[in-house]
Amino acid sequence: MHTITQRQLKEMPTRYRAQLINSLSGFKSASLIGTVSHEGNTNLAIFSSVVHLGANPALVGFITRPDSVERHTLTNILQTHHYTINHISQHIWQAAHQTSARYPSNVSEFDETGLTPEFKHANLAPFVKESELKYSLKLVEVLPINANNTQMVIGEITRIITEEHAIQADGYIDIEKLNTVTVSGLDSYHSTSRLSRLAYAKPNIDPLKIELCGTTD
Amino acid sequence: MHTITQRQLKEMPTRYRAQLINSLSGFKSASLIGTVSHEGNTNLAIFSSVVHLGANPALVGFITRPDSVERHTLTNILQTHHYTINHISQHIWQAAHQTSARYPSNVSEFDETGLTPEFKHANLAPFVKESELKYSLKLVEVLPINANNTQMVIGEITRIITEEHAIQADGYIDIEKLNTVTVSGLDSYHSTSRLSRLAYAKPNIDPLKIELCGTTD
Repeated sequence: MHTITQRQLKEMPTRYRAQLINSLSGFKSASLIGTVSHEGNTNLAIFSSVVHLGANPALVGFITRPDSVERHTLTNILQTHHYTINHISQHIWQAAHQTSARYPSNVSEFDETGLTPEFKHANLAPFVKESELKYSLKLVEVLPINANNTQMVIGEITRIITEEHAIQADGYIDIEKLNTVTVSGLDSYHSTSRLSRLAYAKPNIDPLKIELCGTTD
Repeated sequence: MHTITQRQLKEMPTRYRAQLINSLSGFKSASLIGTVSHEGNTNLAIFSSVVHLGANPALVGFITRPDSVERHTLTNILQTHHYTINHISQHIWQAAHQTSARYPSNVSEFDETGLTPEFKHANLAPFVKESELKYSLKLVEVLPINANNTQMVIGEITRIITEEHAIQADGYIDIEKLNTVTVSGLDSYHSTSRLSRLAYAKPNIDPLKIELCGTTD
């Protein structure tokens, strides 16, 4: 096994280190965040840092970078307090990646990538029409992370829109059936194959004899 | 498409809502966090909330639940300030899941699951020997998330250990080659298949003509 020390990390070329460190957190969610400015300009941006915070209240967080360059997503959320998170499927992953290009704030990534803004249920922020699992959120808090000048944006889920056939009897949404992709590192996209769902773990059960709950159909 | 309102969310049975909301953040990282108490008791726990925060300094976060029940991982990190994060591969995912059972603090999940604690490079906290991508961290900050009484534990990476053949020329670690698994919801485990790595996105390139960089061998 190969070892990389903290000193070696600090002396690495910037881009090499960025690729390396971004690989360490494992497979990541792939989401498009939809917002709109006060002036009505829509914005769509890909994020791989969406993280579950809790189910009651239903809270989700994501990480934004320092304010050294324009961050249209954060600016719009601070203006309107509303945004959407849309799963990226195998049908739209290349267009979704393209939203990471640096467009000016008056250019909509919807127009540039061919994805369709969808205003539903009087929601202020646009959903992505092509996404098969999406939800709207209301801003709760922007938490500063002083260690590296990033921020965690925390929102409460106000509405969920998905294909009904993907919701299983216990509430689990089969995101693999919806062809949601996953990301590793900065730019690698992956489809998935379910190994299994596992039963709730209890101390007295031999891990080698765990009962597998087949849940795919 | 099926719509679930905030009111319906609030009225759902607790377990159904937990399954549903935990599915929304998409595919998640699957990591084992290794710690040791002041008394020398080792602990190993599975987390799906590990999130990349930045590459320079190399910072990683994860979310812990409220302190209403014993949280051995957080307790140990607060005592020693050191911990390890270990990728979960297809060879150990069932044993890894079993670490989520509620063992008393004097019982080591290593003993109970058959995973092997590995003390390397004078690192205080144990690595998982069977993991092919693992790193040690030093605690930087425990950030309270007041919205639901959870906390984000932030650490700086002090050492990385992995298979050298998985590190590509640009620094990206091919975690799929290492058979790292991904999690969806509370209990669904998945293997992955790379679609492609994509070039850095620029505004003037047609998303339908993005050049695909084949990176699998």
